[in-house]
Amino acid sequence: MGRTATLAEQLASKQREISVAEFFERNRQILGFDNPQRALLTAVKESVDNALDACEEAGVLPDVSVEISKDESGPDRYRIVVSDNGPGILKRELPNVFGRLLYGSRFHAHRQSRGQQGIGISAAVLYAGLTTARPVKVTSRVEEEEAAHVLEILVDTQRNLPKVVSEALELWDRPHGTRVDLVLKAKYVRGRQSPLEYLRGTAIVNPHARLVLVEPDGTRITFERASSEVPPVSKEVLPHPYGLELGELNAILKQAKEKQLSEALPRRLAGVTPRALKEILAKAGLTGKEDPGTVHGPELESLLSALHSVTLLPPSAESLSPIGSVLIKRGLRNVLGELRPDFYAPPVSRPPKIRGGSPFLVEVGLVYGGSLPPDQPVQLLRFANRVPLLFQQGACAITAAVESVDWRRYGLDQRGGQGLPAGPCILLVHIASTRIPFTSESKEAVAEDPEILKELQLALQAVARHLKSHISRQIRREYASEKFTIIRRILPQIAEKSSHLVGKPVPDLTPVITEIMNVVTLETASPEKDTGLDVTITNYTPRARVLEVFAEMPSELAGQLAPVPPPDGVDVGLGRMWWTLPKLSPNGKTELRLRWPKGHDGDASDFDWYIAGVDESHLLGADALPGDWDVRLPRQVVEAAEAAELVGVVAPGTTEEPEVDYDGAEKAAELEEDD
Amino acid sequence: MGRTATLAEQLASKQREISVAEFFERNRQILGFDNPQRALLTAVKESVDNALDACEEAGVLPDVSVEISKDESGPDRYRIVVSDNGPGILKRELPNVFGRLLYGSRFHAHRQSRGQQGIGISAAVLYAGLTTARPVKVTSRVEEEEAAHVLEILVDTQRNLPKVVSEALELWDRPHGTRVDLVLKAKYVRGRQSPLEYLRGTAIVNPHARLVLVEPDGTRITFERASSEVPPVSKEVLPHPYGLELGELNAILKQAKEKQLSEALPRRLAGVTPRALKEILAKAGLTGKEDPGTVHGPELESLLSALHSVTLLPPSAESLSPIGSVLIKRGLRNVLGELRPDFYAPPVSRPPKIRGGSPFLVEVGLVYGGSLPPDQPVQLLRFANRVPLLFQQGACAITAAVESVDWRRYGLDQRGGQGLPAGPCILLVHIASTRIPFTSESKEAVAEDPEILKELQLALQAVARHLKSHISRQIRREYASEKFTIIRRILPQIAEKSSHLVGKPVPDLTPVITEIMNVVTLETASPEKDTGLDVTITNYTPRARVLEVFAEMPSELAGQLAPVPPPDGVDVGLGRMWWTLPKLSPNGKTELRLRWPKGHDGDASDFDWYIAGVDESHLLGADALPGDWDVRLPRQVVEAAEAAELVGVVAPGTTEEPEVDYDGAEKAAELEEDD
Repeated sequence: MGRTATLAEQLASKQREISVAEFFERNRQILGFDNPQRALLTAVKESVDNALDACEEAGVLPDVSVEISKDESGPDRYRIVVSDNGPGILKRELPNVFGRLLYGSRFHAHRQSRGQQGIGISAAVLYAGLTTARPVKVTSRVEEEEAAHVLEILVDTQRNLPKVVSEALELWDRPHGTRVDLVLKAKYVRGRQSPLEYLRGTAIVNPHARLVLVEPDGTRITFERASSEVPPVSKEVLPHPYGLELGELNAILKQAKEKQLSEALPRRLAGVTPRALKEILAKAGLTGKEDPGTVHGPELESLLSALHSVTLLPPSAESLSPIGSVLIKRGLRNVLGELRPDFYAPPVSRPPKIRGGSPFLVEVGLVYGGSLPPDQPVQLLRFANRVPLLFQQGACAITAAVESVDWRRYGLDQRGGQGLPAGPCILLVHIASTRIPFTSESKEAVAEDPEILKELQLALQAVARHLKSHISRQIRREYASEKFTIIRRILPQIAEKSSHLVGKPVPDLTPVITEIMNVVTLETASPEKDTGLDVTITNYTPRARVLEVFAEMPSELAGQLAPVPPPDGVDVGLGRMWWTLPKLSPNGKTELRLRWPKGHDGDASDFDWYIAGVDESHLLGADALPGDWDVRLPRQVVEAAEAAELVGVVAPGTTEEPEVDYDGAEKAAELEEDD
Repeated sequence: MGRTATLAEQLASKQREISVAEFFERNRQILGFDNPQRALLTAVKESVDNALDACEEAGVLPDVSVEISKDESGPDRYRIVVSDNGPGILKRELPNVFGRLLYGSRFHAHRQSRGQQGIGISAAVLYAGLTTARPVKVTSRVEEEEAAHVLEILVDTQRNLPKVVSEALELWDRPHGTRVDLVLKAKYVRGRQSPLEYLRGTAIVNPHARLVLVEPDGTRITFERASSEVPPVSKEVLPHPYGLELGELNAILKQAKEKQLSEALPRRLAGVTPRALKEILAKAGLTGKEDPGTVHGPELESLLSALHSVTLLPPSAESLSPIGSVLIKRGLRNVLGELRPDFYAPPVSRPPKIRGGSPFLVEVGLVYGGSLPPDQPVQLLRFANRVPLLFQQGACAITAAVESVDWRRYGLDQRGGQGLPAGPCILLVHIASTRIPFTSESKEAVAEDPEILKELQLALQAVARHLKSHISRQIRREYASEKFTIIRRILPQIAEKSSHLVGKPVPDLTPVITEIMNVVTLETASPEKDTGLDVTITNYTPRARVLEVFAEMPSELAGQLAPVPPPDGVDVGLGRMWWTLPKLSPNGKTELRLRWPKGHDGDASDFDWYIAGVDESHLLGADALPGDWDVRLPRQVVEAAEAAELVGVVAPGTTEEPEVDYDGAEKAAELEEDD
């Protein structure tokens, strides 16, 4: 009879508290220390993420170096030294920051940062201690101090507390910064999921950072700063009531120092305007005079349900630091290297949304075609708060969202309309949030939150629609250019044969050919050494035309570019430029010459081209002008000039414009009169 | 100048300790509480896993009920009540077990159990508090007490400590057990990733448990016990030196109470025999007289490297509780319901291996063909320590291993030889270990550990080889039966036409047809109401044959089955049975009748059939006898009888055996003489 009782006693005697360090030492795979290869990458990642966060908080342009070398104290050991030019860490904080799990400055703040958990770097120290028994050596200098503090720190696993092994002062030529020196069991690899790959990804989405990697064989790779603007420091915001849980609201009110609920609500929560406050209190049946700390039970529940149902100010995007479409495009170009896609979809940035009281937003970029491998699965580049995600692709909401879109509808190959699509395509997806719901402490995959999934799907579909119209344009163009080739080859042969048969001279076919073709083409080509872009517009229609050409580009480029001929209008803010071309006779062509400004590395993919003055179905290489352009052009002049023009056959000698005179719009009007 | 210094100060002022409960409340997705639907499932899962662990530790056949009902205190609220007949929990332990994260009895033990982390159930209590502010109500009774204790407990998030809201005594008709009553924000669904699906999966791999689910609409689903044997309690073992890290060895030695290293090593580590101990100490350059607690630095490193390089006893499987091949087959049958596959591969159980000091083993089952959907991705059933894994399939080592096998080599469709294969196939994969490396605290996916991946791949390949030979057999059979059909249809037509032309009578073609076909077929069919199995063996070869038929089946079935005719031999232990058939003339057939014993629900898939006496290439529906069978049959008699037989043509009327007389082997010998 006493058997199970004894057992309950026995079981009880085994019950014990588990230290969080002990837990993570056992479950190191959760932190990204599964195996020596991943451990190395995770340690580098945690150090670099901390360095970038620190520099950004200080408004400093980050200068981060990562040196990895073989350590000879034992087999499979590597030494990682990461140093930054951040503000440094006060000596008194060093032990806890590096030697204690769940300790940090960013957990309780509502703003976007790479590290949020207070686990990452101390986990690397824990792993180093576990595998090599070596402490981390931290050197840190804050600006007002003459010397740097050098501490050696271990994690005391059973108590989850730091153990300082040694401390010293050292002169350091850096005015401020931190240097982390770790020896751990590791394996160095190149290629996918390597430190190099991680730094490349980091460079893509952090163009303001200078990153240096020294590999174990001495190879030094530098990612230079591509932009010298420090991104605006993301602001700390209040939690937003939408998606807040009962327990969270309770905690917020318990901690509030205001004496009345009507003061506490607008000061402790985002988006609560005076008007909204009134509505909330009325709905919840509260007066507003209540002591915030005493609201509980049914009152608290009514208050929460009122907060969820009243219209509040939308979340502020100030706490977020998106990459932005220009940098997404440039980031994609960085990753491409030698590969030349033939289409860059306009990157999509969704407006910020709220989940669980925290704002988030989604950005997506896509490139397609050209020399990208055509029959592989689409390459997916995932980022969260400007950190590349290299592992756990299969567990990530980003992947799930990509797989849930029916890409067959947008022109990619996809088995059964599900799963990762295949095709010559790279997708870049970034999620920015004050609180990213990662699936584990290793922060390698985003949990499949319904709100996030929805935003991801919307952004992906928007980008996919661009892809679709590109592909159908491409098919149309291919069809047209095929037709073009056939006509130019076959018709003259037929004409020659026929003339020969009837004994008459071969007629000039140019007018017939242009009439059959009936297109205006825009072609871009890079001159030598990629110094700019040459744009050729040819009129293969049977009538002379005055055309307007419009270009859309990054606004910084629009402000610096000096094209020949100069544009007839520029809107730097919107990154737009337009020209009225000299009148083009049938078979006539003209050219625009763009040269990159100094220090700027442009690309054909920076531009979208539009042509007005001819119907969309007669355009090759450019699109019809979208409705949202509002440019003041002498349109009536153009229209009048065209109306006066007859569809006529022009003698071949005169159809070719021998030299184009670039004097801008006025010249075009003159030309019309000359005709 | 002072700017960054001030900043370092500012940053320092924000540094804070983060309570583990606070961390998990924020990152609830890590624990499986991402959204209301998953939260419900996770809460059910944690409660049921605890219940099953408790019953098994007590050696009790588990009787677990799960009641889910709508709770009217607020929108989207459900109440979950899970009760078990386990040993109960002492009152003094209840607060910590339910109200404190990282507290438990199984973390420090080296044995297989479902819960290992001391997080699961308290996380459910934390989530309930967060979303409904309601405490968990726990009722628990240990056998020697008259009444049950009833406690209401909350997690104090900021301190990670239990808060007991109320306590009482209550009479409970159960002699011992625990009952957990939770109200949480949730969503009830059916289908994939539902509580029902989880309980079904649990029933598959825990046939000794009785599980009852009451759904919110009152529907009651019971999974009855399929076996009344309590699985042997998995034993606690010592950590094995293979894969142990420096820090772990250090901790083991520091905690050792022995005075000398030579005493501590064999008592604190598994597999260290006296002979191995000598070798280890010699290799490490130690005497064995050292105080275990003082071994450190280079000495410790030498000791570890000696432990890793010396041959030790392999890990004991006693700490593991595999499912076993009979139950894997039966589990697969359970999940199939109406679907009838035509092939059950013999399940593969790998021997235990070591990773990081802990033993693990891998088991795989596979079914194929029949009425399974032919062009879907393969259905993958993942299990870890007898718990079904329903989420994060994409992040799991099991999935990675399945995707890494080139299934095209084994007859399944797979794009590019990578990714999840497609075909009419279900795979069941189970990993058992004293320490499963889950990718996160929600325990839904196993990390991609190289050792585990390797074992998974080996097991999958072994099962895939069975699949391959089944598919090629099937193709051979289809080819043969196609040939059969054509010959039987075309030859008589030709014969008739030719006879007509030459004006002669149509000849009897049977001998020619059997000569061309030249196969022995074994076909199985279920009689009405699935009461057993009828096996027909037909001799479509041109000579009379004495055949031996061999069946392999679960050993418990072999012990109870009474076939007609009775077998000529039975090996119950190995689950084998064999018959020497009466001599079969060309076109002759005979039948074996198997009827299920009372209370046993058999299936054609329980049997593998082999035939001796004819070459493998002349067999359809059975295989040649494998080399590892050692059965004592009157083989010389059979061979002599066959040698005496001529390849002769028998008149059609006499080729059909009208009634077969079942008197076993002696009879067969008699028949030979009669012939």
